[in-house]
Amino acid sequence: MGLTLAEKILSKRAGREVRAGELVVVEVDQVMVVDSIAGSFFKRLEQLQATPRFPEKVSIVIDHVAPAANVEVAKAQKEIREWGNRHGCRVFDVGRGICHQVLIEERLALPGGIVLGSDSHSTTYGGIACFGSGMGATDIALAAASGRTWLRVPETVKVTFRGSLAPGTTAKDAALEMIRVLTADGATYMSIEMHLVDGAESLTRSQRLTLANLTVEAGAKCGLVVPSGEILELYPIPEWLYPDQDAVYAKQVEIDLSTLTPRVSVPFYVDNVEEVAQVRGKKVDQVFVGTCTNGRLDDLHEVAAILKGRKVAPGVRMLVIPASSEVLEQATADGTLLTLLQAGATLGTPGCGPCMGRHQGVLAPGEVCVSTSNRNFKGRMGAADAEIYLASPRVAAATAIAGYITTPEELEGTHA
Amino acid sequence: MGLTLAEKILSKRAGREVRAGELVVVEVDQVMVVDSIAGSFFKRLEQLQATPRFPEKVSIVIDHVAPAANVEVAKAQKEIREWGNRHGCRVFDVGRGICHQVLIEERLALPGGIVLGSDSHSTTYGGIACFGSGMGATDIALAAASGRTWLRVPETVKVTFRGSLAPGTTAKDAALEMIRVLTADGATYMSIEMHLVDGAESLTRSQRLTLANLTVEAGAKCGLVVPSGEILELYPIPEWLYPDQDAVYAKQVEIDLSTLTPRVSVPFYVDNVEEVAQVRGKKVDQVFVGTCTNGRLDDLHEVAAILKGRKVAPGVRMLVIPASSEVLEQATADGTLLTLLQAGATLGTPGCGPCMGRHQGVLAPGEVCVSTSNRNFKGRMGAADAEIYLASPRVAAATAIAGYITTPEELEGTHA
Repeated sequence: MGLTLAEKILSKRAGREVRAGELVVVEVDQVMVVDSIAGSFFKRLEQLQATPRFPEKVSIVIDHVAPAANVEVAKAQKEIREWGNRHGCRVFDVGRGICHQVLIEERLALPGGIVLGSDSHSTTYGGIACFGSGMGATDIALAAASGRTWLRVPETVKVTFRGSLAPGTTAKDAALEMIRVLTADGATYMSIEMHLVDGAESLTRSQRLTLANLTVEAGAKCGLVVPSGEILELYPIPEWLYPDQDAVYAKQVEIDLSTLTPRVSVPFYVDNVEEVAQVRGKKVDQVFVGTCTNGRLDDLHEVAAILKGRKVAPGVRMLVIPASSEVLEQATADGTLLTLLQAGATLGTPGCGPCMGRHQGVLAPGEVCVSTSNRNFKGRMGAADAEIYLASPRVAAATAIAGYITTPEELEGTHA
Repeated sequence: MGLTLAEKILSKRAGREVRAGELVVVEVDQVMVVDSIAGSFFKRLEQLQATPRFPEKVSIVIDHVAPAANVEVAKAQKEIREWGNRHGCRVFDVGRGICHQVLIEERLALPGGIVLGSDSHSTTYGGIACFGSGMGATDIALAAASGRTWLRVPETVKVTFRGSLAPGTTAKDAALEMIRVLTADGATYMSIEMHLVDGAESLTRSQRLTLANLTVEAGAKCGLVVPSGEILELYPIPEWLYPDQDAVYAKQVEIDLSTLTPRVSVPFYVDNVEEVAQVRGKKVDQVFVGTCTNGRLDDLHEVAAILKGRKVAPGVRMLVIPASSEVLEQATADGTLLTLLQAGATLGTPGCGPCMGRHQGVLAPGEVCVSTSNRNFKGRMGAADAEIYLASPRVAAATAIAGYITTPEELEGTHA
């Protein structure tokens, strides 16, 4: 019996063949810590009387509340810089961008590697077949102190995305459909192994990151996209970094991309996924384009294509927050940003923005937001009764123009 | 005996000749309310059982904490939008920019007019010879309810700026020099009437706004720049909008621009003005370019010229926050923004930014910031012991590159 992709990566690292259910201790390539967890992380290390064993393998990213929104946050950020300097660990400061995007851009997450992050969406690295997983401050501190972590090898759900994306749909729609099918606890502590076939291989790195990002919303330990297409050009892919044909899967699911329709995740659960058509017309107060899910250059391109020559609806705040300084710089250089600004979009500092409701666009009671992010839980972006609808950048852009939830295609119809 | 410029404006509006010391009731052109005061403003109107007499003369600008940094702020913003809609008053929403800049861009403040603002830097409008003055929520509410306000006609200090700006100096240096000479309470409840002569007429609107902006730091009721140069091209200037030759001044001061040197206002008082040379070498943690003082396109151009081809010093956070969406759009279109980003600057949403320490770059204890803003009081930008050095965009840019307070000229020297 063969091995799944997760088993392959963990076996390679463990130096022996391991299978789902076994416990392994493995070396990690990067321990990633975000600003909001850094304080606890430092405290745990102190309690352990430990320091990072491999300082170059620890990256701290100031992204969750950056620039600092108050003195407490400013103090925490100052501590991060001082700690990073003292221990020789990388600190990505205010404005550099969202942790996951930064680690990808800096090539600190690589195919076949293992990255542990203090952020739950560390599954994102799986888009390039890197075993990425989120853990709490204690586990992260132990990993930093030892350079290793222990894991129960996860069982695997195989998700096959078949065909080319139907017109008007995106990787975000595919990801939301996957969460709908699997449900919020359908892959708890599992690896979601994504196979792109019959045209789906053409999904870009950015699109794969979107897929892997959302896997944690089904409870996954990691979400790995089998390398193909663009990934083979962007990275050297080790031969062994593929699942075996006869790997053992706990569950298998197929999603036909060619018949997909635009999706939206309705409050207050990510797996509350409906067709956009079902909620069309819902008035919105804010539209948020950004986050580790959909804040990359191709996302901004899609938004700009829809906003070009149009104006954001009166009464709607459209907030665009690029995932990183690199994304912002590219969008500025290629004219995308100008198009967004001319349409009336408001730009925010690269980082997580209002995704966790901690600054830069927090929602008031009763407000409705369409967001390209990954969570629509009660109170996630501010007031407990504020409603977050998760959608693709395309749907977000069309919604900003219309003032209510809609698709670009319907928008065209309206204008015709 | 003739009249000062303030007396001219108030006489015209009162319909009779009035002089310093007299009480007048005058119609106002705009009542400007900022987000942070709006709640009190609404409450006062309610207590008065009044509504805006001329809704088109009331503008509310969401700029002090925008996008919303927390649920309380989000609620307050929501109330502003609802109130504005209900009463037919203009609301400039998140990202449109800083109140003073927005009213200038929207031509809601005009030469010879009277604008009352709930923000102390409402003296800014004086840059175009508009009587701009800051008042509290109660006075502002009365003005909105009645369309008028009462004033004691201020005495006037005449400040003559003579000559062309010395190389390496800017309107900000001239403004800081003025505050040094007048001192923080040297013009309490006075009009500072600024005459630009012998070359100083060439100062642009933006530079004049910088001068007028700072006048409140000497306690001024208003700060009026006598129309000349570019102002005559940008606006129709009524014949009467000039002080009489034989006007009576409480005090007269001359500042020679041709011998000016770069200035910096040292913590914790604005009139603590020194030459940059005296504090050169002071290490900084943050550099902030923006605000109603120096967040305009020409300011960003000056910064970009210095940053071009260079990198912000490691360990320094350089925050650039354009004064308005219009400024950001222009800076994006003309390549300025790209230069700033390539140098490592971090961009923030147009608005007041961290100027009042309420979000987007609050300072931690012990941190040092060079800022192009207008106040360096204890705790202004966050922690009570954080130090703010007020300077020009040129000095701010050079400091960001060096990592310590310096001028572009010294930077060149260093590089040679």
